[in-house]
Amino acid sequence: MDDTEVREGIMRTLEHPATGELSLDAVLAALADPVRRTIVAQLAAGHEDQACLAFDLPVSKSTSTHHFRVLREAGVIRQRRAGTAIRSTLRREDLDAGFPGLLDAVLGSTSDAASDAAPETASAG
Amino acid sequence: MDDTEVREGIMRTLEHPATGELSLDAVLAALADPVRRTIVAQLAAGHEDQACLAFDLPVSKSTSTHHFRVLREAGVIRQRRAGTAIRSTLRREDLDAGFPGLLDAVLGSTSDAASDAAPETASAG
Repeated sequence: MDDTEVREGIMRTLEHPATGELSLDAVLAALADPVRRTIVAQLAAGHEDQACLAFDLPVSKSTSTHHFRVLREAGVIRQRRAGTAIRSTLRREDLDAGFPGLLDAVLGSTSDAASDAAPETASAG
Repeated sequence: MDDTEVREGIMRTLEHPATGELSLDAVLAALADPVRRTIVAQLAAGHEDQACLAFDLPVSKSTSTHHFRVLREAGVIRQRRAGTAIRSTLRREDLDAGFPGLLDAVLGSTSDAASDAAPETASAG
């Protein structure tokens, strides 16, 4: 069990920026990625407090772990350990307080995110 | 004169994404910088069609040129030559059509951008 925790490496310390200290730079950069917007959209749609692995993402586990970390460090999501899993929740209140309307505007535009995040299929550039 | 144009290098081709082809990724990434948000805020505040040099930015000319280019390539601003100057306008309609509410949300949070963009003065981290 301790082994597993060590293997999780980067996930060991779950650091979060404080409520009043979210940076707009970091939040916008975190949201500037279709996979991360998919995660946020799923959390916003009620998949709250979900284990990272339960998300349906078109990327590897390590890439997914990276994306969750970027979201957490920007203050977009909160993560906590639950046994061997990491569960995530959206920090909607903190985001709405710091950047009113931003999350809704980004989520409202997320129809394009879904297609951006999908693995390449049709539509040659 | 031709010399000046060659020296401008990167500014020679003023490419813009088409109206319906703005990428949310690119727009969010472009806005994830306090200097670029200052440019956008000044354009939104009525300093439309202004030469790049007329902006009051706490960065060098070449850094400023870079920031304008990122904004243009993301479709946030439109740039055109006016003699030897480059003039910029905000693509508000295109942004509002593609990402309703996003620009206003970002600009509404821009009070923090102003302080972020200022040269270091007080407030040790």
